[in-house]
Amino acid sequence: MRRIRIQLAYDGTDFHGWQVQPGRETIQGTLEAVVAEIEGRPVHVAGSGRTDAGVHALAQEAAFTLENPIPTPNLRKAMNRLLPPSIRILTTAEAHPDFHPRFQAVAKTYEYRIVRAEVCSPFEWRYVHHHPYPLDVDRMTACATVLEGEHDFTAFAAADDRDVQGKTKVRRIFSSRLESQAGRLVYRVRGSGFLKHMVRNIVGALLETGRGNLDEAAWRALLLVPGAPRKAGPSAPAKGLFLIGVEY
Amino acid sequence: MRRIRIQLAYDGTDFHGWQVQPGRETIQGTLEAVVAEIEGRPVHVAGSGRTDAGVHALAQEAAFTLENPIPTPNLRKAMNRLLPPSIRILTTAEAHPDFHPRFQAVAKTYEYRIVRAEVCSPFEWRYVHHHPYPLDVDRMTACATVLEGEHDFTAFAAADDRDVQGKTKVRRIFSSRLESQAGRLVYRVRGSGFLKHMVRNIVGALLETGRGNLDEAAWRALLLVPGAPRKAGPSAPAKGLFLIGVEY
Repeated sequence: MRRIRIQLAYDGTDFHGWQVQPGRETIQGTLEAVVAEIEGRPVHVAGSGRTDAGVHALAQEAAFTLENPIPTPNLRKAMNRLLPPSIRILTTAEAHPDFHPRFQAVAKTYEYRIVRAEVCSPFEWRYVHHHPYPLDVDRMTACATVLEGEHDFTAFAAADDRDVQGKTKVRRIFSSRLESQAGRLVYRVRGSGFLKHMVRNIVGALLETGRGNLDEAAWRALLLVPGAPRKAGPSAPAKGLFLIGVEY
Repeated sequence: MRRIRIQLAYDGTDFHGWQVQPGRETIQGTLEAVVAEIEGRPVHVAGSGRTDAGVHALAQEAAFTLENPIPTPNLRKAMNRLLPPSIRILTTAEAHPDFHPRFQAVAKTYEYRIVRAEVCSPFEWRYVHHHPYPLDVDRMTACATVLEGEHDFTAFAAADDRDVQGKTKVRRIFSSRLESQAGRLVYRVRGSGFLKHMVRNIVGALLETGRGNLDEAAWRALLLVPGAPRKAGPSAPAKGLFLIGVEY
């Protein structure tokens, strides 16, 4: 049996997220159907982690086990021929039999794109959060860096995850930066791992900050354990979020 | 009555072209429905010209007549609120009562995008022609410029237009250039006007040239009248084509 590692990009707009769900189109389900067609039996495809419905990926990592001796370049071509154009296999490679894209990941990078211009391009609206309202960008930029380091991110966890005991909410954030470009904001965060909805909740809190509802002291308080406020703010929409890369 | 001039961008993927067709979603039909909602009566929207099904626009020009005294910035906001995100009004302005976006246009520019990389990005496939096969780019680049000047473009006309007598097929092309960038080709053409399917037929001939089936002498022969071959080659797909701008 061969262990195959793939890197893929996808437009998440028309998918119900990464994870297989009966009766719904998902990235994992679509990949598994295509690999099963090549292999002639059901195949489980493991990812580096789930992405929510509507979230995109520039370089998601995944792996599966194959008996079929097809050379890896041909496997990539065959998969791309069978997949919809909204999912593309970028690379296929032989991997160690024990390779697991989730357990062995040491860092992930996400990017969130906000368009501030009054009119959002018809070629971009699926891939950005359009927010044509005033924001205090200097304050947002300063607060974004407060997250760097090792912290308990309970205040940025998904509502259904926040009160689950026994699972640590501590993560290490290597960098957390907001950049202002012409008519847009790009938030980029690299960390050891992320809680469910964590990046969208960080961006939600950044937008609250830009509206004047949070300051640096409030951000520091969100990271205090015990004693943190229970929630940082509303989640930012999925469509502005991209998984940029996974490191091993 | 006010004459309103608008500039708009659209993603043509999900539309049956510019022109109103009963029972089909078109750009013109969608605009007319929105302006009628604002004006409270049917309104005709005139464009600078038709675009085919699947063709996109970065800056199409159009105009209509309005009684409603709504200021032009508010009109733009109201239209963008009512339109789907795939059509965006970029500017709205008062125009001379006689302004007609088609009859007064003096030049138009189109761009055609070809992706040569083996894998086409899931964020780009709607907006490019994916052609991951060998092409003689130097030959294509040389032949593209043959079209510059005033010529009879019968050989590049649509099949249903080619044999229609009495309408001139002479057009002036100010520039016709192919640029090779990293993994892609961009063809840009600026002219006094274009026949139906003309740009897609030019790009089809360029691809035939890249495959070695046409040379510079063949291109010159296509422009000979009388005596031109009847057809330059197959049309390139609509989705790689963008109307870039219209000049008055």
